[in-house]
Amino acid sequence: MSHITVDPAKPGIIGLFDYRPETAKPLGELVETLLRGPSTLSRGERELIGAVVSRGNDCQFCAEAHGAFAAAQLDGGRDVVTATQADPANAPVSPKLRALLQIALAARESGKAVRPDLVEAAKAAGATELEIHDTVLIAAMFSLFTRYVDGLDTTAPDAPEWYAGVAQQLVQVGYAGIARPAQAAAV
Amino acid sequence: MSHITVDPAKPGIIGLFDYRPETAKPLGELVETLLRGPSTLSRGERELIGAVVSRGNDCQFCAEAHGAFAAAQLDGGRDVVTATQADPANAPVSPKLRALLQIALAARESGKAVRPDLVEAAKAAGATELEIHDTVLIAAMFSLFTRYVDGLDTTAPDAPEWYAGVAQQLVQVGYAGIARPAQAAAV
Repeated sequence: MSHITVDPAKPGIIGLFDYRPETAKPLGELVETLLRGPSTLSRGERELIGAVVSRGNDCQFCAEAHGAFAAAQLDGGRDVVTATQADPANAPVSPKLRALLQIALAARESGKAVRPDLVEAAKAAGATELEIHDTVLIAAMFSLFTRYVDGLDTTAPDAPEWYAGVAQQLVQVGYAGIARPAQAAAV
Repeated sequence: MSHITVDPAKPGIIGLFDYRPETAKPLGELVETLLRGPSTLSRGERELIGAVVSRGNDCQFCAEAHGAFAAAQLDGGRDVVTATQADPANAPVSPKLRALLQIALAARESGKAVRPDLVEAAKAAGATELEIHDTVLIAAMFSLFTRYVDGLDTTAPDAPEWYAGVAQQLVQVGYAGIARPAQAAAV
């Protein structure tokens, strides 16, 4: 039972996007740009950053959803996601992505926790300034999502199959498609 | 000295919007919709929520900027902002706004901290579900902004006059105007 009246058939942020289309539009564009727009980080790598930050935020819906989205788009799939969410410092990913994950986890905690040595380590591992920018903003965006989803006490499905199904939709139609399920179904 | 190369003449989020226009666009639309779009909460009330959350986040740029924006648009002006940022529980505002401020401060801490009793208290004080939704999302948005601004180690002017000047621009042209200062200046 959410704090506000949302469609019970639409869990997590999907019901909130449905409730307030005026804010869903820019939020949908932000997540699409950051996680699926042109970037030198792959879509799977960016979803993995979101999945790790969401696990740190203890947000079930966000961690499961973006874990599934990462698994669907990352070399190594679910095994890499599970290992990385459990132990980001030893994630079986490139040294550059491992360094960016440390920046993301610092930004998750607070902006001021992103110390210069973390930034220097990422640059030494080959990260560009734009990749560092986007990593901080992805972590910041998930600080918004977790407070939005949990702060209105939305529901989160337990079944992994539900998230895997949404992941398949996402890969095909992007965030705009899953944020407007009625319209996506009509396409 | 920021973690990435931004225009030193553009402090805080202004330089970041300039650095990455693709993410500035939806972020600008989100803040414009939430803080200045149609709402039963006044623009000054919504800026006050942002100013209080930003003070809680210990983000100098955000707290000073949105404090100035609230002061420029709120009955009671600067005195109400100063008193409210110092002691939100006893803010000299309506009981409804005081209850919404408690929800915002809880969401600032974490989504799960928005307990049902806070929501019930706001509803008892006359808050609508949409006002509660927007309050949670405003607080969530400032959790993004503080991590974005501090996580990239941007600068913040010390002079109150600087923020007051930006506030005057904001009142006239909205967030789209101050997010694109070059274009705003050309208007």
